[in-house]
Amino acid sequence: MQKPEYPGRVDIEAAAKRVGPRVRRTPVVELEPGLFATAGRVSLKLELLQHSGSFKPRGAFNRVLSSDSPGVDLIAASGGNHGLAVAYVARELGVPAEVFVPTLSSPVKIARLHGYGATVTVGGNFYSDAYDACLRRVAESDALLVHAYDGFDTIAGQGTLARELNEQLPGIDTVLVAVGGGGLIGGIAAWYAGQVKVVAVEPERIPTLAAALDAGEPVDVEVGGIAADSLGARRIGTVGYSSVVAAGVESVLVTDEDITAARQLLWDELRLAAETGGATALAALTSGAYQPKSGEHVAVIICGGNTDPSDLTPDA
Amino acid sequence: MQKPEYPGRVDIEAAAKRVGPRVRRTPVVELEPGLFATAGRVSLKLELLQHSGSFKPRGAFNRVLSSDSPGVDLIAASGGNHGLAVAYVARELGVPAEVFVPTLSSPVKIARLHGYGATVTVGGNFYSDAYDACLRRVAESDALLVHAYDGFDTIAGQGTLARELNEQLPGIDTVLVAVGGGGLIGGIAAWYAGQVKVVAVEPERIPTLAAALDAGEPVDVEVGGIAADSLGARRIGTVGYSSVVAAGVESVLVTDEDITAARQLLWDELRLAAETGGATALAALTSGAYQPKSGEHVAVIICGGNTDPSDLTPDA
Repeated sequence: MQKPEYPGRVDIEAAAKRVGPRVRRTPVVELEPGLFATAGRVSLKLELLQHSGSFKPRGAFNRVLSSDSPGVDLIAASGGNHGLAVAYVARELGVPAEVFVPTLSSPVKIARLHGYGATVTVGGNFYSDAYDACLRRVAESDALLVHAYDGFDTIAGQGTLARELNEQLPGIDTVLVAVGGGGLIGGIAAWYAGQVKVVAVEPERIPTLAAALDAGEPVDVEVGGIAADSLGARRIGTVGYSSVVAAGVESVLVTDEDITAARQLLWDELRLAAETGGATALAALTSGAYQPKSGEHVAVIICGGNTDPSDLTPDA
Repeated sequence: MQKPEYPGRVDIEAAAKRVGPRVRRTPVVELEPGLFATAGRVSLKLELLQHSGSFKPRGAFNRVLSSDSPGVDLIAASGGNHGLAVAYVARELGVPAEVFVPTLSSPVKIARLHGYGATVTVGGNFYSDAYDACLRRVAESDALLVHAYDGFDTIAGQGTLARELNEQLPGIDTVLVAVGGGGLIGGIAAWYAGQVKVVAVEPERIPTLAAALDAGEPVDVEVGGIAADSLGARRIGTVGYSSVVAAGVESVLVTDEDITAARQLLWDELRLAAETGGATALAALTSGAYQPKSGEHVAVIICGGNTDPSDLTPDA
């Protein structure tokens, strides 16, 4: 039987069972009313505490463990977090990994890739360049390609975050999620399937979803700004896009300044060192780009912490 | 009726009611079996996410709100975290605060004191010097002295951390807690009262509890090492000591190197930027100074995050 266009709850349940305790159950924290000068009730899902520093191992484990040959070498292209996840997954499963990264990847992430024992190939300015190099290597090897966001099993794996959040905070009204290639929001939209409002938050310099919604299909965008090393996909993936459209997700845009301010607030108020992409969803609240109604319970996904924390201003 | 020597559960319940939502309910995260090469089941209580970056507002709020004149100016001496808490409490309650700190206080903490709007007086090498200066000011004013650790109401307030932990993880066997002046461990020992094993973790260069247990009463110790800015009390307080002795708490010592390694592990494995004092309890596990039995469920209090994160090594 052919797989449907995008995963549903049954696929996410299967992913959760398959991945099991290999993925860390990340905590949530509820903020005080009005902390960030916003109405509503705000909880943060601290997914930056996940293995390898982002949500990405959820999808990567599910992709590898649901393949027909989970014991082969892994190969991936990634601006950073997905590569780290694949390198982590490979180390945990005891197989080699080769990761292709563009030159704009942060030195912190490249150093960590080496730390997990992966082979790292740096080249090209953008994710798409690294991806092309990766495809050439796949064509000449038996390695398993683990795509950064566009795949049924990857997105089903990312959906386990929403399944977990639903156990932790069953009554939420809204989830704010940062978008790059659309893997995480695709999984979250697939889980909630319109029963909870899912809002996509995008840097205005990488509006992959907004552009796709405008065009009626995934289209290329310019990639720029401070969140490019984690959210810098050139276009949203087809599986994630289908899931997002089916769930009626809306997109809001935030500026680089909004993201920087939200990242600093996370440090000042909670001593959390998120990366720029990890602070992007919160930026929609702190900038006012998304304004919850009074009483609306909003969950914000803090999705990554692979940052060099030295540029966080110490004084609150 | 005279108050007993140290608080009990009824006092901690009263403190929790008094302080209410002014204190943040900090999350817990369970680690994977064997993550830090330790037996047992390990959960971290992420108290570094508390307001002002440490557990201290729990005690400070309870001290102020249970006084006869909660509306007067606040005054405190503190190596840093307690001062921050008092400054935060003053801001929240709308009263002025003056904080005396020794010269070895971290610039990060002093900058944050100013950020909360407190008057800061820097002088003397050690906490005891700042405390003497503070007492002189108290003698000539009507301000309310909020002691950093040695007070019935302060310790009852710190005990709310254990009450909260008990709701979050009702079945734990053991709690590991860093010790400086004995306020936090006094409150935690008062809550558990021998029903859960409480283990004090002390930097070997500031062994306030170990020295007191040896001598049979609180005695002065030399203060040194990398955790001195948060754990650097010269002697354990009498209220905390009484509580700790009644609960049969044991003390284990860790080196500065153990603390540095634990702090780096928290960053590498969970992207948490703890201060040295905040990583001290974990150091007992990661160094092997405390070795849980197989199946023992250990909760580790990560009690502070008022650190300059720039010295965390980026590569895992």
